[in-house]
Amino acid sequence: MDRRSFLRTSALGGTAAAAAGLAAPAVAQGRTSCVIVSTWPRDFPGLGTSAQRLAGLIEEATDGAIATEYYAAGERVGAFDVFDEVASGNAQAFHAADYYWKGVHPSFCYVCSVPFGLTALEQNAFMHYMGGQELWDELGDRYGLKGWLAGNTGCQPGGWFNKEMNSPADFRGLNMRIPGIGGDMMAKMGTSVVSLPGGQIFEALVSGTIDATEWVGPWNDYFLNLHEAARFYYNPGAQEPGPSLSLTFNKSWLTSLPAWQQRAIQACCHMENDRMMAEYNANNGQYLARLINDHGVQLRDFNEDIFDAFGDAAEEVFDEVRQHDELAERMHQAFLSARADVGHWLSISEQQFARNRNRVLGL
Amino acid sequence: MDRRSFLRTSALGGTAAAAAGLAAPAVAQGRTSCVIVSTWPRDFPGLGTSAQRLAGLIEEATDGAIATEYYAAGERVGAFDVFDEVASGNAQAFHAADYYWKGVHPSFCYVCSVPFGLTALEQNAFMHYMGGQELWDELGDRYGLKGWLAGNTGCQPGGWFNKEMNSPADFRGLNMRIPGIGGDMMAKMGTSVVSLPGGQIFEALVSGTIDATEWVGPWNDYFLNLHEAARFYYNPGAQEPGPSLSLTFNKSWLTSLPAWQQRAIQACCHMENDRMMAEYNANNGQYLARLINDHGVQLRDFNEDIFDAFGDAAEEVFDEVRQHDELAERMHQAFLSARADVGHWLSISEQQFARNRNRVLGL
Repeated sequence: MDRRSFLRTSALGGTAAAAAGLAAPAVAQGRTSCVIVSTWPRDFPGLGTSAQRLAGLIEEATDGAIATEYYAAGERVGAFDVFDEVASGNAQAFHAADYYWKGVHPSFCYVCSVPFGLTALEQNAFMHYMGGQELWDELGDRYGLKGWLAGNTGCQPGGWFNKEMNSPADFRGLNMRIPGIGGDMMAKMGTSVVSLPGGQIFEALVSGTIDATEWVGPWNDYFLNLHEAARFYYNPGAQEPGPSLSLTFNKSWLTSLPAWQQRAIQACCHMENDRMMAEYNANNGQYLARLINDHGVQLRDFNEDIFDAFGDAAEEVFDEVRQHDELAERMHQAFLSARADVGHWLSISEQQFARNRNRVLGL
Repeated sequence: MDRRSFLRTSALGGTAAAAAGLAAPAVAQGRTSCVIVSTWPRDFPGLGTSAQRLAGLIEEATDGAIATEYYAAGERVGAFDVFDEVASGNAQAFHAADYYWKGVHPSFCYVCSVPFGLTALEQNAFMHYMGGQELWDELGDRYGLKGWLAGNTGCQPGGWFNKEMNSPADFRGLNMRIPGIGGDMMAKMGTSVVSLPGGQIFEALVSGTIDATEWVGPWNDYFLNLHEAARFYYNPGAQEPGPSLSLTFNKSWLTSLPAWQQRAIQACCHMENDRMMAEYNANNGQYLARLINDHGVQLRDFNEDIFDAFGDAAEEVFDEVRQHDELAERMHQAFLSARADVGHWLSISEQQFARNRNRVLGL
């Protein structure tokens, strides 16, 4: 696939696309072409399937006025090239985990997830009603981008280990696959952090190239067969407590659309934000049960000493991140405020209820 | 206001409506009129403002193809008349808490919230991916209705009390304002349950007509001045752990719309489902802090004995509810499955993370 935009010339609802050799988005018979590139393999459960159906939803909900063309990772550009592809205007939108852009600006991490950060509900409150979106917009403006949240996987497990982890010292010298700023936290623990795409993890773990890995959660992890390579499954981790995925647009393209189409796209992003979280929660419990009951996986949780050490390590990471520039500092302060405020409220309301309910019911 | 449907004849974006004397929804220049009635007072923070902006969103995201007219409680029909108004086709949709229809069929309660039931994330997983929507559709078909989730307040407090509640016995003979199936649970505790609209609660509590009341949460409770009438604020309650609000349509009207409009409406409902929850979480913590710091409110939580008794009382309510008919039994079984499955997953993932994080940070 080349980097040119595509004009869909087929009839309404058709799927065939013809390369028209146009560099700019095109409108034909009231239809605007919108190329969406993503960081996920095609049909990857949860992340990939969610991005794909969001592309379909936008076309459907706008009666085809926005004719979307979706390209999974590698089908048009590589996963990590989607940022430039959209910033440059070669494509109109990308679906990604924004912490992939931490090298561009560390504040992108807060839009997705930071270690010792926000759960899904906290993240939504922060982004939608506590200044997060506005800071993201300010950040996006630097690159000609405008994003909306469009999914969440929920709190990710600590990962798969081939031994029990009993103290912070057990992390020293460990070879672990863990990406992003969560990986930075683990590096502060003394872990040798490596980054590997999903397809190479199982092999590396079996061969002993790595001692441990994290991935996404029971639903996704199940299909990587990680339980055949490591026995101890630690839940939860501290590296990604509620990672948001997002759909980010070339801003000048987005704002050139009629207002109703921009609004419809925003509604579609919210729909996916709502249902991807629901889908993960509906699946994770069931796949965790399979892992434990059918495959003998040993479920563990990190003890308090380890969580204390994670907390210290996360602070070290933040100390570096917030020094990047004054926007990074403002983003961090807004995050701290949301974490303290919503975190406290949820702990004494819904979490306290769930604790009581589960105790009474033996869940 | 009479019960006739209205045809909006004003120009795009206008707000004036002219009664056209048509009994059926009308289409003029490609625009379809959609009358939305609700159970909330106009501009009621959270519930009312959310329903109002959802009505506006649907019109905006469809480029005015769906021309919505929103009527708050009492502006067209009384709050509890909205079900009949939409089932009969006099209006096209209502925004409500579906447990208001427990007298029509108790399974409507599960679409909103039941005592000892689901938190917001659990409710979304249940409704979107664990059979809840399908059972709701089957229920709705009996009345010519089709609903989508469109909001959540989060776990509601146990309420305002003028004395400390130390044992289940303290609930016996208490006069408490608490509606719905949560009220049924409290009645099993020996409480004298009364139902009062929001505007009468403060007066009743001050005068001693009632000893206790629940309302919605710190953000909403603050504006009823309940802290001036009772000092002890118990969080959380067990009566409504994650109440969903919904937008329910006259099904034959909804399905007569072009597919893209139905899809756009669904996306708008998801958007409101996502952002109402975020708005409550963003506000509740801040208003709770005001109640405690500025108004001397005493925050308390119910002890284990009380929660045990709530659990028993809820079981008694369920025993009655599920005997209503076979659909009620299937709804209950699906609910039990989601509660056990997602409840366990969230307890060992996100809630365990939040517990650890809050402990380390002292939140």
